[in-house]
Amino acid sequence: MGGSLALALREAGYVRQVTGCGRSQENLESALKLKIIDSATTDPAKAVAGADVVLLAVPVGNIGALCKIIRPYLDQNAVLTDVGSVKADVVMQVEEAFGEIPANFVPGHPIAGTEKSGAKAAFSDLYKNRKVILTPLPKTSPDAIKQVQTMWEKVGAEVEQMSVAHHDKILAATSHLPHLLAFGLVDSLARQKDYEEIFCYAASGFRDFTRIASSDPVMWRDICIHNRSAILQAMDRYQIDLDRLRQAIESGDDDALLEIFSRAKAARDEFAQ
Amino acid sequence: MGGSLALALREAGYVRQVTGCGRSQENLESALKLKIIDSATTDPAKAVAGADVVLLAVPVGNIGALCKIIRPYLDQNAVLTDVGSVKADVVMQVEEAFGEIPANFVPGHPIAGTEKSGAKAAFSDLYKNRKVILTPLPKTSPDAIKQVQTMWEKVGAEVEQMSVAHHDKILAATSHLPHLLAFGLVDSLARQKDYEEIFCYAASGFRDFTRIASSDPVMWRDICIHNRSAILQAMDRYQIDLDRLRQAIESGDDDALLEIFSRAKAARDEFAQ
Repeated sequence: MGGSLALALREAGYVRQVTGCGRSQENLESALKLKIIDSATTDPAKAVAGADVVLLAVPVGNIGALCKIIRPYLDQNAVLTDVGSVKADVVMQVEEAFGEIPANFVPGHPIAGTEKSGAKAAFSDLYKNRKVILTPLPKTSPDAIKQVQTMWEKVGAEVEQMSVAHHDKILAATSHLPHLLAFGLVDSLARQKDYEEIFCYAASGFRDFTRIASSDPVMWRDICIHNRSAILQAMDRYQIDLDRLRQAIESGDDDALLEIFSRAKAARDEFAQ
Repeated sequence: MGGSLALALREAGYVRQVTGCGRSQENLESALKLKIIDSATTDPAKAVAGADVVLLAVPVGNIGALCKIIRPYLDQNAVLTDVGSVKADVVMQVEEAFGEIPANFVPGHPIAGTEKSGAKAAFSDLYKNRKVILTPLPKTSPDAIKQVQTMWEKVGAEVEQMSVAHHDKILAATSHLPHLLAFGLVDSLARQKDYEEIFCYAASGFRDFTRIASSDPVMWRDICIHNRSAILQAMDRYQIDLDRLRQAIESGDDDALLEIFSRAKAARDEFAQ
């Protein structure tokens, strides 16, 4: 996420200097080699010193600890933003780390990404024509919002604002739930005795359906932990609907099956246009 | 399915004459125009008269009725095969229509396809390097098996044999279940009040995950009805595993979540290679 934004901002000529910070020296070296970043460090304190904008692109479970580390080194006017798939919990972590929600903190979430991670997976078109959701809080500085919005617009994204709670509910339904269903299916099959044969006869539909099950396990563990209540609500609603579908199959209810599949196809076809 | 096979067989120079049969005059005209078929008819009796090989490519619920229509017009040596995603029920329908299982009937299922239907969606590469499963019965003629196998190999497919029951169990897990989960998710979301907004923030992961929910509703209704018991077994197993995942989220069990996601990612990464 961070690498693709850095690449795109450099291509757009919108940044003077990008410092990459990460735990893996190897990944940082790849990022330098690929000219994604100008300088690299494994020390978050050094990374943020003198920065105008600080982008937190880490699993959402690490936001609080990272904020505690960087807090003393942040410039007073530095804008702080993130790319976390969960917003309520990230806001809570930031608030706890700073003692209050900093006026220059703009919670953000680009609706983009692939199942791959690391510098080598970065590409500058990732955010083109994609939506970025900002969930500013009552005390968030309008200037900080504008800076973050402009940054995302420079890389081709369409920026929208909504409340923290609304974001978490929408994303639980369209992103977190599908990821869990895909992870769940692949794991369920992988634990069966004849799983190698099962996968051997899987077709392109299965490949697409399960692509998101190749996503980073740590990132998704954190999302589950930190968006728990919205995710449980989405799962429970889905389980009820899946049970209804199961009943229709069990009772051989042709009409109910055709109705469910037709409504789904119509909605999916409309979405894909 | 039929159109793509016809195209590929013509490109391979393996067929003299292909007659297309369907209910939609418009679709048949497209097929003629696109040179997928040499001649067209909406009358199955005319379509099979004089044919060396008859391929049944219809929703699995229509196999029995279609066999009853064509039975009197089939050449004695004509090889009969199908492309149905379900085998036990298709075999039963054929047996009922003919009074016994014809020795020249070779149940088949190419593990390929897209979510699109009709002549315009046909392309000759569809079966290249894909698996085709044949599920011959004890009385099936070895010559008929060989003819069907050669036909599929001519279009680049890899042909394998297995039992009817094993086929239905494997396909329930890798194809039927994912389709139901995708149909179920899109329908579940589409019935929510704010569904337009929900879809509006869906990303590429959602797009891939739900692609199969654009599949033909009639075909999938038939698959559910005609592979009911294997599908219910696969669904029940999945629901138990999904419940376990739900429990791990509810109880905040980091380790269990990481274990499930890591195992799934490893299996999916291996499958995708």
